[in-house]
Amino acid sequence: MPQPAARMELVRPSAIRELLALAADPGIISFGGGYPDPALFPTADLGEAFRRAIEEQGASALQYAPSEGIDRLRDQVAGLMRADGVACGAENILMVQGAQQAIDLVGKMWLEPGDVVLTETPSFLGGIVGLNPYEPVYRSVRTDEHGIDPAHLEVVLRENPRAKLLYTVPDFHNPTGYTLSLERRARVVELAREHDIVILEDTPYRELFFTAQKLPTLKSFDTDGRVYHVGSFSKTLAPGLRTGWMVADPDTVERLALLKLATDTQNSTLNMSAISLYLEHADYGAHLERNREHYRAKRDHTAAALAAELPEEVGYSVPAGGLFLWLTFPEHVNTDRLLREHLIPRAGVAFVPGSSFYSENPEFNRGRLGFPTLPSDRISEGIHRIARGYADARHLL
Amino acid sequence: MPQPAARMELVRPSAIRELLALAADPGIISFGGGYPDPALFPTADLGEAFRRAIEEQGASALQYAPSEGIDRLRDQVAGLMRADGVACGAENILMVQGAQQAIDLVGKMWLEPGDVVLTETPSFLGGIVGLNPYEPVYRSVRTDEHGIDPAHLEVVLRENPRAKLLYTVPDFHNPTGYTLSLERRARVVELAREHDIVILEDTPYRELFFTAQKLPTLKSFDTDGRVYHVGSFSKTLAPGLRTGWMVADPDTVERLALLKLATDTQNSTLNMSAISLYLEHADYGAHLERNREHYRAKRDHTAAALAAELPEEVGYSVPAGGLFLWLTFPEHVNTDRLLREHLIPRAGVAFVPGSSFYSENPEFNRGRLGFPTLPSDRISEGIHRIARGYADARHLL
Repeated sequence: MPQPAARMELVRPSAIRELLALAADPGIISFGGGYPDPALFPTADLGEAFRRAIEEQGASALQYAPSEGIDRLRDQVAGLMRADGVACGAENILMVQGAQQAIDLVGKMWLEPGDVVLTETPSFLGGIVGLNPYEPVYRSVRTDEHGIDPAHLEVVLRENPRAKLLYTVPDFHNPTGYTLSLERRARVVELAREHDIVILEDTPYRELFFTAQKLPTLKSFDTDGRVYHVGSFSKTLAPGLRTGWMVADPDTVERLALLKLATDTQNSTLNMSAISLYLEHADYGAHLERNREHYRAKRDHTAAALAAELPEEVGYSVPAGGLFLWLTFPEHVNTDRLLREHLIPRAGVAFVPGSSFYSENPEFNRGRLGFPTLPSDRISEGIHRIARGYADARHLL
Repeated sequence: MPQPAARMELVRPSAIRELLALAADPGIISFGGGYPDPALFPTADLGEAFRRAIEEQGASALQYAPSEGIDRLRDQVAGLMRADGVACGAENILMVQGAQQAIDLVGKMWLEPGDVVLTETPSFLGGIVGLNPYEPVYRSVRTDEHGIDPAHLEVVLRENPRAKLLYTVPDFHNPTGYTLSLERRARVVELAREHDIVILEDTPYRELFFTAQKLPTLKSFDTDGRVYHVGSFSKTLAPGLRTGWMVADPDTVERLALLKLATDTQNSTLNMSAISLYLEHADYGAHLERNREHYRAKRDHTAAALAAELPEEVGYSVPAGGLFLWLTFPEHVNTDRLLREHLIPRAGVAFVPGSSFYSENPEFNRGRLGFPTLPSDRISEGIHRIARGYADARHLL
């Protein structure tokens, strides 16, 4: 058989996949998932939207559609983005098969092998996996609880003349839960302009904020079309609909639409039509508010359990939104080993080892704790198991 | 702004796109489309399937699913393939976002820049556009009304040691409507084995046969996993569902599923669930039979009109299935010009100029005539317009 392309090496099964397979046993409480809570899916309203799409629009909802997406939904999404402070119209919107496809298309459009992609430290694994086939070199930028450190970003940009793209999740980051501060947002976009790079702003958790308001998007600081904003209905409506969008200048949307045509023709016409009808007839705003309350309560419950159970030496973030907390164990603790040898087989609890989330120089003493799908009593019991399992294993680590 | 990747040059807008934009005027009868007839979409049965998926399966039909696709549908598709003479099980099936995504994933998996891809002469445009981002070199293999010429395939394989992939549409080809003969099927797979290349067998029109039976798939001649078979529900259920599949050995399915995970995570869970319920509760066999009768009648009507109206010097194929006829004008006629200067603006009729469909050495005297969506009277009038327009323009060409 001929040799597969070298890029195949870059999408090998992840450590997460293997480790979480171990945690599939129903006796194990897993904080590993990043799935939204299915109890929140607006099943009745979506059922009604699909019924209308098929019965009322019939054939047109089942036929081919432009690769950019159907006009009505692009218009509605542009309205959502304007309400979020981004000046745009339907011509700025490309519908995509979830945010993951935006990552693939941007890689396909921008990256030659050896180009430098800047990432947060740590970074969303799907961003790295999605860009890998285009064979970039990664440089990770120092990141703290206020997001990317602009001073270090500047250093990295100076040192890497082939830097072309910054991939960032500025709101309630996966895996850390951190949010890029207002001052830093302005500065990051300014640095992108000065060093002539493109920013891919991935915001799947943006609407799941637990505070009074959201910070402005990076896109809202963009003056010359170098920020590509990516949004998604996966965490707010349902991931099984595979519907997200990109916001970019019309020329870029047109170019990306040609790439999308070559890649998978278009998003599902039916799903786009049904989401459009949902936005028209259901109360998306009230639904988002229910989501926020639900996840805020889970975050509070998780944080309280961590405060009560964990020893001082284990730190954790309390995110202002989203689905994840970030655990920091003492430096000598390797969470891959802690999970594989102790927590999963003996304590019956799992989370995602932090080492999976680094594009270079992994840190081994971290962990991602996802709380979205667990009921309160399982959260309490799960954190109790982490604390007990860690206490039991501590002398062995 | 930094430079886009060089591969962007390879997905520029096609001549088809521009020309067919001219033909969007409702006064123009367009044979340009390759869309299936929406009158055939099983709207009521699909409505019922989506209702069941959302009401009965609820959250699980809206949640994330494995990137390979949901097990039940993979199992059902494997059953359809076994009924079509391919020995396989669910582990051989990867669900994809329409056949176009299979093309993208196979390119991503196999092709390094400069690798040689063999195509039919002419070839499906979407196949070329889909593989272009992986920067192959194309070599087109001589093709006649019985499909690829194996003698020429052997010559091209000998001359191109970097040949890696043959892309072919063996059943009711787009654009020609030709079908690869039984003897040639066996020989093509044999040559692929001898010269160690992979075959991508794309079969969107396979179920739309107008004769007593189908020929066996190339996959059914495969002894060592080098044929990737691609099927799709786009032309038999509805393209707006974006649901197709690949059949390959389990290792390849696993590798492609990892690429799919990096590319767009997965197909829509809801669409997969609904199609699975449709296959379980509706009569897909009877639906396919209705499709065949419908398109057979349109083909017959189109062929009769061509026989009655066209001068002897213009040839055409009468396909044994599918959605397209292939016109051959005298060698000095350039159909790009004929369409742009005469048929579209003066005669009010359009088809797709043949030159768009060649990966190298385009022929300019051909045209693709798609009949699926036009009612009989429009087909008659459209072919009358082609004949009259050509007669009027003949002395100018």
